[in-house]
Amino acid sequence: MANKAQVLYDFTAEPGNNELTVREGETVTITNQGVGGGWIEAQNSRGEVGLVPEDYIEVREWLGVLSMELASFILYINASNGKDPWSVWNQDTTGGSSNNWAAQPEGTITGTITGKSAAPDPWGTTAQSHPQAYQGPGAEDDEWDDEWDDVKSNSESGDGGAIQRGGATGSSMKISLNKFPGFSKSGPELFLLCKQPPKGKEKITIYMGEVGPVWSYPEAQLDCVVADPKKGTKMYGLKSYIEYHTTNRPVNHRYKHFDWLYERLLDKFGSAIPIPSLPDKQVTGRFEEEFIKMRMERLQGWMTRMCRHPVVSNSDVFQLFLTYKDEKDWKTGKRKAEKDEDVGVMIFSSIEPEAPDLDPIEVEQKCDQFSRFTKAMDDGVKDLLTVGQEHWKRCTGPLPKEYQRIGKAFQNLSSVFTSSGYQGEATLTDAMTSAGKTYEEIAQMVAEQPRKDLHFLMENNNEYKGLLGCFPDTIGVHKAAIEKVKEGDRLVAASKITPQDKVTMAKRVSTMSYALQAEMNHFHSNRIYDYNRVMQLYLEEQVKFYETIAEKLKQAHSQFTTM
Amino acid sequence: MANKAQVLYDFTAEPGNNELTVREGETVTITNQGVGGGWIEAQNSRGEVGLVPEDYIEVREWLGVLSMELASFILYINASNGKDPWSVWNQDTTGGSSNNWAAQPEGTITGTITGKSAAPDPWGTTAQSHPQAYQGPGAEDDEWDDEWDDVKSNSESGDGGAIQRGGATGSSMKISLNKFPGFSKSGPELFLLCKQPPKGKEKITIYMGEVGPVWSYPEAQLDCVVADPKKGTKMYGLKSYIEYHTTNRPVNHRYKHFDWLYERLLDKFGSAIPIPSLPDKQVTGRFEEEFIKMRMERLQGWMTRMCRHPVVSNSDVFQLFLTYKDEKDWKTGKRKAEKDEDVGVMIFSSIEPEAPDLDPIEVEQKCDQFSRFTKAMDDGVKDLLTVGQEHWKRCTGPLPKEYQRIGKAFQNLSSVFTSSGYQGEATLTDAMTSAGKTYEEIAQMVAEQPRKDLHFLMENNNEYKGLLGCFPDTIGVHKAAIEKVKEGDRLVAASKITPQDKVTMAKRVSTMSYALQAEMNHFHSNRIYDYNRVMQLYLEEQVKFYETIAEKLKQAHSQFTTM
Repeated sequence: MANKAQVLYDFTAEPGNNELTVREGETVTITNQGVGGGWIEAQNSRGEVGLVPEDYIEVREWLGVLSMELASFILYINASNGKDPWSVWNQDTTGGSSNNWAAQPEGTITGTITGKSAAPDPWGTTAQSHPQAYQGPGAEDDEWDDEWDDVKSNSESGDGGAIQRGGATGSSMKISLNKFPGFSKSGPELFLLCKQPPKGKEKITIYMGEVGPVWSYPEAQLDCVVADPKKGTKMYGLKSYIEYHTTNRPVNHRYKHFDWLYERLLDKFGSAIPIPSLPDKQVTGRFEEEFIKMRMERLQGWMTRMCRHPVVSNSDVFQLFLTYKDEKDWKTGKRKAEKDEDVGVMIFSSIEPEAPDLDPIEVEQKCDQFSRFTKAMDDGVKDLLTVGQEHWKRCTGPLPKEYQRIGKAFQNLSSVFTSSGYQGEATLTDAMTSAGKTYEEIAQMVAEQPRKDLHFLMENNNEYKGLLGCFPDTIGVHKAAIEKVKEGDRLVAASKITPQDKVTMAKRVSTMSYALQAEMNHFHSNRIYDYNRVMQLYLEEQVKFYETIAEKLKQAHSQFTTM
Repeated sequence: MANKAQVLYDFTAEPGNNELTVREGETVTITNQGVGGGWIEAQNSRGEVGLVPEDYIEVREWLGVLSMELASFILYINASNGKDPWSVWNQDTTGGSSNNWAAQPEGTITGTITGKSAAPDPWGTTAQSHPQAYQGPGAEDDEWDDEWDDVKSNSESGDGGAIQRGGATGSSMKISLNKFPGFSKSGPELFLLCKQPPKGKEKITIYMGEVGPVWSYPEAQLDCVVADPKKGTKMYGLKSYIEYHTTNRPVNHRYKHFDWLYERLLDKFGSAIPIPSLPDKQVTGRFEEEFIKMRMERLQGWMTRMCRHPVVSNSDVFQLFLTYKDEKDWKTGKRKAEKDEDVGVMIFSSIEPEAPDLDPIEVEQKCDQFSRFTKAMDDGVKDLLTVGQEHWKRCTGPLPKEYQRIGKAFQNLSSVFTSSGYQGEATLTDAMTSAGKTYEEIAQMVAEQPRKDLHFLMENNNEYKGLLGCFPDTIGVHKAAIEKVKEGDRLVAASKITPQDKVTMAKRVSTMSYALQAEMNHFHSNRIYDYNRVMQLYLEEQVKFYETIAEKLKQAHSQFTTM
């Protein structure tokens, strides 16, 4: 077993370079691990021998399947107001600039992004982590694919090199309409025709802002950090304790608790708010550390996005999760949450105030517009992910290899020159050696760079892919309601509903439209912030990268002389 | 014919990208020339359709074979002293810094590179030319391959993408020993045993310098520029005129004159001085303009190297070539040169003063050392050429394509965002569009960069490959002479030579060794200058390249905002 290795990504040999073409999942035998330059010599099952990039194969022993069920997570919860948590977790990249997750100071309702409030970046807290390779856009079966996709083939592009991970954040939430009590028989009319909103329950407030309807944002926005106690992070070994509304308050949760929370949120809010899937629960044993890091990062991203959402973060079930004390309290709260009847379309009964009657044509147009936009963005995001994945492969594969070869060729020529026995050779040979080493350094920089910039661009887009995958279901609920209202006259004529029911239905669909518009406005303002932020980070790191290379080459240049 | 195209380089399709794998020389049919982004849709003979980089195929019509025999060249000859001709031809890259081709001011003999003298760069005069792709290290059959090569396979690496050009500067000079009168029967003893040096002939002077024996360098070094009168360069249409020892003096020569000169120089100096082959005489009709440019550049390099050589440039035959007036004078000079008897090993009879008797062991060691060094450098140079060719392919093929795709993906997402209908979108979409365009600009920069830097590094190494290919023959002559001297006692015993002959032979082989050492010192000092110069140029352009990218990205970065 010692000499066996698992191939992690497809690698196509370049002709004439003594390389070996291997396929993901293939087992090869290591014939020479000391080749150097990031290469390993391996033999495939057909007996062919050649070089393979060492990053493309896993030489460590197979450790079996690690279940996340066995791991638990500590949540550090923080209600912050105006303070920038990014500066705590990732000071070097932000310089303490203020963040804005579109949270609105209470009472002022605007949709622009000028407010000052704080929240962590979903991909920022693990800025120090270095996943082995981008695990992103997989070949998950996606709702969009069935409904809309024409030419794009995810499975094709996904085959390229990244490891496939089913059910990651990227997959859609797949609301089963049957989950909503009574929906299977009557669809959205459960809400459209319900007698009157139940009293004494949670309320969801919508204001009219500059951009249209917007959710009411809390004054102090929640913020949380997911940490893995197994990894020796701070607080490991300490007893969990809770200090609500102060700074750090660790809460212990097992993965199944996250899973339960996700199911609750999906049941409760799925008709109004996209609830993205959790990152995948299980991983195979290969690269388990990198994978756990990546999954933790994505779990962090998921929790942060939930914290950022004014409706989700303010809900009883989410607060129950954050205020977890012990198993007994948890079970009590759990039972209560599971009895919640304001789930599915009934969530719209919590909206207040009731919306004014909207023009049904405008309601339908808005709905169609959101549908078109989310579909178009989904395509754009997937396109960027495909391109980014290709680029990642090149930057970590053939490109640094080539810079390394250039570096070696310079050094090689330098050592030949040294052997000339000619006087006055040293200046040139020192300079050539130094230039060669510079290109080797550049090779390493090139290979490491994607983890510093492309990674975050990819993770941001991956997260949006997950969010966007929820919209077809959410929008589907609204479309079904609109269709029902359109049938109003016919239903009245057939005496299935009363004329008053028809008026009520029109009112209720207006409220649904308000909620959808509020959610889209939330989505847009988050999106504008997120893309500005991630593009800034990406370009900042790219500038540093190219400047560093130029500086290194300038130094190498200064050693040559023709005087 | 309009839709047919010739494939210029191998191109391997990346899976899932709708690309088409094509092989050099293949004919394809253009099915869509308006794909954009540097791509063309083409169909191969098996009916498969896909995208091919437009630079990889030649859409222009086949123009047939253009013979260089039909073209004539103007030589601008210039005897300069201390003035930097590079600054005339390539001012922007050198800033007028002084050059040193190891030419020594008369009377001071040093081998260091501190002197100040002028000569043009062999690859500098066509700095403005942009050959379509690097045509360099081919699969020419090479003397080294037969004798020494073990693992390296030139034909394999050469198959990659560049067009093969037989008989280019890179091939060895292939001295036929039979060319030297009497050599086929008696080898180097023609010189070793000749009665006494003929009187009243050209002399070649060697001095003892700091580094050992060195050639005597002329005070004013020749410098010439090869221009193609067909290309509308200056002086075209004017009558040729000659003003020796002043600035520009154009001389008209047909290619066959160059060829004749090469044959004369090889005959006369080949035993003592490497005379590299001329660039190939004929090219096929594809890309004829680029090829003519490249060949002109190499002819320039060849002429410059001959001008730089103190022994060659001072010879009657070379001066005849430079002072060409009309066909009548030329024919007279030609006949005289062809009657020259100091050719082959007899060139050593022109050396003065006669060398002191050298230790035969030292003579052999020096010879072996030169042999090892030139072999090692030949390997190093070929390695660099192979690596550079791969890099050229990547920089002009897949890499810019990828940057272009990144740029398109950003712009695509930006146009989706524009359709959101959300207020305050413009800042982000403008910034994303601008970032996208920046990456498209980077794509173009990446594709154009090799012509600005790698080209000169490749041409320099290609020229050295040609020079180094001459050494096995040159060194072979010396080894044969050393063997002959070793046989001295046996030959005396067998009464084949007299004891006096044996003494003479030892003296003569000392003179040969002096000449070889002088030539090696010339080679080393030229090499040190050339490699310093070309590395400076390369790194200078690389620094500019990375700095420009960083600057562009900085600008793109400044447009994003999270305030």
